[in-house]
Amino acid sequence: MTEGEPKARFLSVFDKKAVNPAPVWLMRQAGRYLPEYQATRKKAGSFWTMCMTPDLAEEVTLQPIRRFDLDAAILFSDILVIPHALGQGVRFEDGIGPVVDPLPPLAELDLNEDHWAEKLDPVYEALARVRGALACDKAMIGFAGAPWTLAAYMIEGHGTKDQASARLFAYRNPVLFSSLLDILCHAVAQHLIAQLKAGADVVQIFDSWAGGLPERSFAEWVIAPTRHVVTEVRAAFPKARIIGFPRQATQVGLERYVAQTGVDGVSIDTGTSMEWAASALGKAAILQGNLDPMALVTGGAVLDRAVDDILHATVNTPFIFNLGHGVVPQTPPEHVAHVVSRIRAAEGIAH
Amino acid sequence: MTEGEPKARFLSVFDKKAVNPAPVWLMRQAGRYLPEYQATRKKAGSFWTMCMTPDLAEEVTLQPIRRFDLDAAILFSDILVIPHALGQGVRFEDGIGPVVDPLPPLAELDLNEDHWAEKLDPVYEALARVRGALACDKAMIGFAGAPWTLAAYMIEGHGTKDQASARLFAYRNPVLFSSLLDILCHAVAQHLIAQLKAGADVVQIFDSWAGGLPERSFAEWVIAPTRHVVTEVRAAFPKARIIGFPRQATQVGLERYVAQTGVDGVSIDTGTSMEWAASALGKAAILQGNLDPMALVTGGAVLDRAVDDILHATVNTPFIFNLGHGVVPQTPPEHVAHVVSRIRAAEGIAH
Repeated sequence: MTEGEPKARFLSVFDKKAVNPAPVWLMRQAGRYLPEYQATRKKAGSFWTMCMTPDLAEEVTLQPIRRFDLDAAILFSDILVIPHALGQGVRFEDGIGPVVDPLPPLAELDLNEDHWAEKLDPVYEALARVRGALACDKAMIGFAGAPWTLAAYMIEGHGTKDQASARLFAYRNPVLFSSLLDILCHAVAQHLIAQLKAGADVVQIFDSWAGGLPERSFAEWVIAPTRHVVTEVRAAFPKARIIGFPRQATQVGLERYVAQTGVDGVSIDTGTSMEWAASALGKAAILQGNLDPMALVTGGAVLDRAVDDILHATVNTPFIFNLGHGVVPQTPPEHVAHVVSRIRAAEGIAH
Repeated sequence: MTEGEPKARFLSVFDKKAVNPAPVWLMRQAGRYLPEYQATRKKAGSFWTMCMTPDLAEEVTLQPIRRFDLDAAILFSDILVIPHALGQGVRFEDGIGPVVDPLPPLAELDLNEDHWAEKLDPVYEALARVRGALACDKAMIGFAGAPWTLAAYMIEGHGTKDQASARLFAYRNPVLFSSLLDILCHAVAQHLIAQLKAGADVVQIFDSWAGGLPERSFAEWVIAPTRHVVTEVRAAFPKARIIGFPRQATQVGLERYVAQTGVDGVSIDTGTSMEWAASALGKAAILQGNLDPMALVTGGAVLDRAVDDILHATVNTPFIFNLGHGVVPQTPPEHVAHVVSRIRAAEGIAH
């Protein structure tokens, strides 16, 4: 229950200690809700240019840290840098979102790790610069998409409601799909390792489309590949701090994910009960989450009640305050400042 | 464990008895995957015309029953008949899906129950005709959308990924939103009562967007309104057989839904473990579900394994075989026939 400096606060959670007040950062904290982000975005001309230009990625990563007393910066980047490194074309179109070229035969993917490192060098340079620019009391978070979520993008070409055609592809082509997951496990692990080398204190694995999978598929496509990634990362960085986010996983799914993947922490989505998570998972994993992004937009009593619900549910639990999904563009920045100060003021709630 | 006639098989599950082999029907069993449906749809000119013309609704409702040895027919209709009855314009546009006019001030909604009954009379007439045409060994299922799912459509105007703007509306306008839910509870209950009067043996409440809601919102927007609907229906039909489908609800959510709403049965989505459901809910509720619609598209060993997983998980549990979501258009009809015969052949598995 020590308070200490902010960096100690964030990283000491990884000793599986409840920290009071809870450390806080927000998924998509660098983003369109900030006018200074909009200005950089306009100057850059495209989302992808921002991801791939170290100066710009550094700038937008630091913007929320300048405004708010957050405990961690998360590198401004995108999960689709991995398909890009593998040689599959990725475009970000305004108002449409990312579009990935059709999946080529696997033999035509670029499997040369040196090429991956070259193509993604701007990402690692941006991360190293942010770490250098960031006050020592802030933590630096790197991230990657999880193999299943990346595979779904690579197969479907764009975000979909329920990844039905990726499931169909996997059912119809089990051997090919398994090979694709293997390639992605290695690429994801190498990408996380490179970010740890560049100075990341923590890495997060985003499995945005872990929801809605049959139990057997969740085991084969979410849990097993994540365990592979964690194992490969820990072979290079035995003490790597790793958070997983199998979004919309069921409770059975979350219990197995925590027990079987080797992650230190698990991010909880808005729909999952944090009270349940604290009771069922809080002994085995650090919890993170799970404020409704729309409560953050709303503000006022709705926001305060939602924040307090989460703080009360996680008393005496190793816990990092976050959203259950990313910050949305219509979020008033002052609501973010309010949440941070409400969490700081809640130190009376023993975390 | 009696087998008996098919109708006895379906309805005897509502005595909370495991029935062997399990009765079976499929959500969206009347639909675009059937060539005869496509032909009727072409003749009708629009989806809405089919819903609102008793002859046509009867025809498409019966089509899958003629082809397959299913245990129940579900009326061909749409959850948006309720906003229509309330006077909010609803259009079905090809390739876009349903579009609902902007929500008017609640005072401008048509709250006259006699008007609802008049506007929806074609629905009740279709149901009565199907019940008359249906063999006595088949059950007839009526349905309605749940208040929260209907409210989200009425607020957002169309289907969305995560109902974020409906949540925001509810947070910002709690009194107005609560009044809208009250209106919908009554309209949904009256719609189900009218279907029971017309001859429905069972009614199902579809809460397609129950997923992703914070715990408190799930209690207020899903559980409480559903309990209201069930109570109002049972005041008119004390023995009404009611199945709820809070799709993508969490396990905590499902446990509370079963314990608190008064439904007899609960439909389980594809992502939820049927093994968990049988163990946690199977004593309190009839279970229904939860084959992945994409496994049904795939066929072969993938389909057989998925069917068998579900049958094994539900041994000795009162259970109705179904999908975890609706039949998709690319489904080969012969796969449906195969599933039905595999379930019939599995009577060795004690249900």
